[in-house]
Amino acid sequence: MDDSSDGGATAGGTKKKPSAAAAKGKATGKGKATSKAVPKAKESSLLKQKSPAEFFAENKNIAGFDNPGKSLYTTMRELVENALDSAESISELPDIEITIEEITKSKFNTMIGLVDRERVDEALYDDFESSKAREKRLAKEARFQETQAKNSALGKKVKDTPAARGKGRGEASFFRVTCKDNGRGMPHEDIPNMFGRVLSGTKYGLRQTRGKFGLGAKMALIWSKMSTGLPIDIKSSMKGQDYITFCRLDIDIHKNVPHIHLHEKRENNDHWHGAEIQVIIEGNWTTHRSRILHYMRQMAVITPYAQFLFRFLSDAAEKNLTIKFARRTDVMPPVPLLTKHHPSAVDLLLIKRLITDTTKPNLLQFLQHEFVNISKAHADRLIGEMGPDFSAKTTVNSLTSQQLVRIHQLFRQAKFDDPSGNCLSPAGEYNLRLGIIKELHPDLVATHASSPQVFEGHPFIVEAGVSIGGKDVKQGLNIFRFANRIPLLFEQGADVITRTALKRIK
Amino acid sequence: MDDSSDGGATAGGTKKKPSAAAAKGKATGKGKATSKAVPKAKESSLLKQKSPAEFFAENKNIAGFDNPGKSLYTTMRELVENALDSAESISELPDIEITIEEITKSKFNTMIGLVDRERVDEALYDDFESSKAREKRLAKEARFQETQAKNSALGKKVKDTPAARGKGRGEASFFRVTCKDNGRGMPHEDIPNMFGRVLSGTKYGLRQTRGKFGLGAKMALIWSKMSTGLPIDIKSSMKGQDYITFCRLDIDIHKNVPHIHLHEKRENNDHWHGAEIQVIIEGNWTTHRSRILHYMRQMAVITPYAQFLFRFLSDAAEKNLTIKFARRTDVMPPVPLLTKHHPSAVDLLLIKRLITDTTKPNLLQFLQHEFVNISKAHADRLIGEMGPDFSAKTTVNSLTSQQLVRIHQLFRQAKFDDPSGNCLSPAGEYNLRLGIIKELHPDLVATHASSPQVFEGHPFIVEAGVSIGGKDVKQGLNIFRFANRIPLLFEQGADVITRTALKRIK
Repeated sequence: MDDSSDGGATAGGTKKKPSAAAAKGKATGKGKATSKAVPKAKESSLLKQKSPAEFFAENKNIAGFDNPGKSLYTTMRELVENALDSAESISELPDIEITIEEITKSKFNTMIGLVDRERVDEALYDDFESSKAREKRLAKEARFQETQAKNSALGKKVKDTPAARGKGRGEASFFRVTCKDNGRGMPHEDIPNMFGRVLSGTKYGLRQTRGKFGLGAKMALIWSKMSTGLPIDIKSSMKGQDYITFCRLDIDIHKNVPHIHLHEKRENNDHWHGAEIQVIIEGNWTTHRSRILHYMRQMAVITPYAQFLFRFLSDAAEKNLTIKFARRTDVMPPVPLLTKHHPSAVDLLLIKRLITDTTKPNLLQFLQHEFVNISKAHADRLIGEMGPDFSAKTTVNSLTSQQLVRIHQLFRQAKFDDPSGNCLSPAGEYNLRLGIIKELHPDLVATHASSPQVFEGHPFIVEAGVSIGGKDVKQGLNIFRFANRIPLLFEQGADVITRTALKRIK
Repeated sequence: MDDSSDGGATAGGTKKKPSAAAAKGKATGKGKATSKAVPKAKESSLLKQKSPAEFFAENKNIAGFDNPGKSLYTTMRELVENALDSAESISELPDIEITIEEITKSKFNTMIGLVDRERVDEALYDDFESSKAREKRLAKEARFQETQAKNSALGKKVKDTPAARGKGRGEASFFRVTCKDNGRGMPHEDIPNMFGRVLSGTKYGLRQTRGKFGLGAKMALIWSKMSTGLPIDIKSSMKGQDYITFCRLDIDIHKNVPHIHLHEKRENNDHWHGAEIQVIIEGNWTTHRSRILHYMRQMAVITPYAQFLFRFLSDAAEKNLTIKFARRTDVMPPVPLLTKHHPSAVDLLLIKRLITDTTKPNLLQFLQHEFVNISKAHADRLIGEMGPDFSAKTTVNSLTSQQLVRIHQLFRQAKFDDPSGNCLSPAGEYNLRLGIIKELHPDLVATHASSPQVFEGHPFIVEAGVSIGGKDVKQGLNIFRFANRIPLLFEQGADVITRTALKRIK
């Protein structure tokens, strides 16, 4: 396994950022187990417990909220992936609308009822420039625009003006991100905790899903709390429910509990089901526009049975966007199945938990039913191998911690078939191929799906596609890689597929 | 800020591991905020709260515990950095002993009172090979050893036999990691929570320290619980304390509370102060040996005022190591100072918290005393700029959430001097240079310390050294990079220093 990058001060998302890492060291050193950096006498009294919400607010990079731009990207992405999971979980062809609406500072201030004030003491501001510096800049911008005009005349790519790019340094910009799906919806009573309580989630169970630590929507709420202070709006109805839940809440980060503004049921006359989530956060469209659009296209490629409507709205009409990724097939991958644990992938802790949760009283049944790839005969042989103080009839609750270690060790050393991967639900080469064709209209396309691989007992399937040419796509090869239908967007160019493709294809 | 690697399924430490990432998606998808992958009817009842300890046990990669080998590395590293912080916090020249003792499976089993059993049903095991395959392998190994013999005769580097390298796949190996320092020690009463309660830590405050999220020692305990089930041993005494604390505990991961086996005071006749921490975990020395030694050398270079004694012990005498990194100077960087927040670096949440914690009733004093780089005059101007409903006398507790947003926005747009960095404590070029010379005895050495830089309002100083030649080091250039005295071990070769050095130096 590659851990070549476990850098000095790094952890979580700060890998590539010495500065961040070093800073984090400071910012979070306070939590250190051995808290020796405080005066001895008072130390005892200083020990305090941090809530999970506080921890993730202080280390938001872990969940991909490193900065406003990336937070906008991650928020949108987490909402989209939850939406897809939701629709697929009830075998509904996904129909997803994402809207990112830019909110200028003055608009934002009006929203929160804050008088938007003109600058008075100009010299106070970060972008203050002496009249001399100002003249210089204006001259420069003028020259720049001329060349741009020429370029666009010659059909060359036109860049933002440096001014436009430079902007947004101090000046925060805000966005209303809305994601609407036709999925399962959420139970009325659970909604507040699902969003307003970090580390609350649903019962244990292994199943292929998108998304990370289940932090996504909660982090979006934490980020909105940190950057705009505005609550999140949730609208949801489950299939056959005669009402729609409306819920508005923010989070008490210190207590890690939802702070509910509104939580009510309204009529559901047209039998809508799904969820609509709306959050207002600080972001940066300029820096993350292309990343967001690239991600949307990737999703359109791997899920051609889904329909995406992506909108960007702002006061600057020329910046606005409406992109419709149309559905091209009704063939949908099966719902991923719940699966049991693979014996090679369990640790002591997990074995203990499985024993607590199991309905199977004796060891033989426990081995046979709580794990994949252990037949009755195999279980018998394993028990025989464990030694004289184990028998098929041993009640699992009576196992000593030594005996658990023995079982764990045997699991680690014994040979088991790899997980079948039948719990997985790849897009399938048909869908992938179709997706590439519909999105890129390439001259050539080739796809491949790997057989199920295993990482630490977790099965996954890599699907890849290579295409050449197409309409409005970059020249040469376009390469798509997915693991369990999740785009692999990092390390592009470094992976085997790309290298091989570039080597073999002239 | 670089987030070019915020890959598809990645998060936290899983950046470079599609498989891991995809797997994580599965393994932790259960926590998803919108938990739609469970039967509708029962959903409500399935919602549960996870403890912070459970979360980090399931996502141990976040803290650098991706696999046994990396867990061994991270455990040792976290203990060393806590030890250094501890000694430096009381201006004591650090004297640190690290011992990694390999414990064979049979030794381990005896330790926990488990009868070590011979294999009976060979065919059950992962490394089972048919007699035919066996003959083949032995022949191959024989040939391999011949060539090795030749190589070593010719003074070429000798690799492990493939057998040795291959080993440890199924066969777990265990290690007792012990770290002893002469630092501040920990208060008797706090020790259980410092180790056995994730997210407990000491009071807020900004100060340069090493270490990550304060998870280090706690993660080591969680990992020992997962891999060996054995408790952690802590021995500690604070300066002038007439007793030594002995504490043995593990952690109830579900409840996130320490489970204390032993917590007592013993005589401290020779006035010892410091801490000694011992944990027994699964690890992998074969794969992480060089990384661990590389790290030790890096630390020796940047902290020449510290003395490190590193030991590796095992039953195989030829594998054993004792490396002493001697102290070469008594010149020690000053203790890093507590610092206040930089106005550009605070978010809404933090402003609220500072208002709750401050002793300064009115806005003027609040701005002046709770932040760096705001003089009284500056504070006056800022308040003027905030608008008519703000005044120097405004009591901070009476500020509305709108007014807080206004302050936040002004902080974001206003110009403030960068943090002075006088809260930082770099090693200093003298120390860095000395460190490189003492460790490498190079023919040439050059060092540079940057002026304080700022990342999101967090100051840091990068120190770098380049050397050529030396005793038992690789040919050509050796490059050392540190931020706030933390080695930057990741992306080696990609950084500016390396690229420049390689370009300029022939």
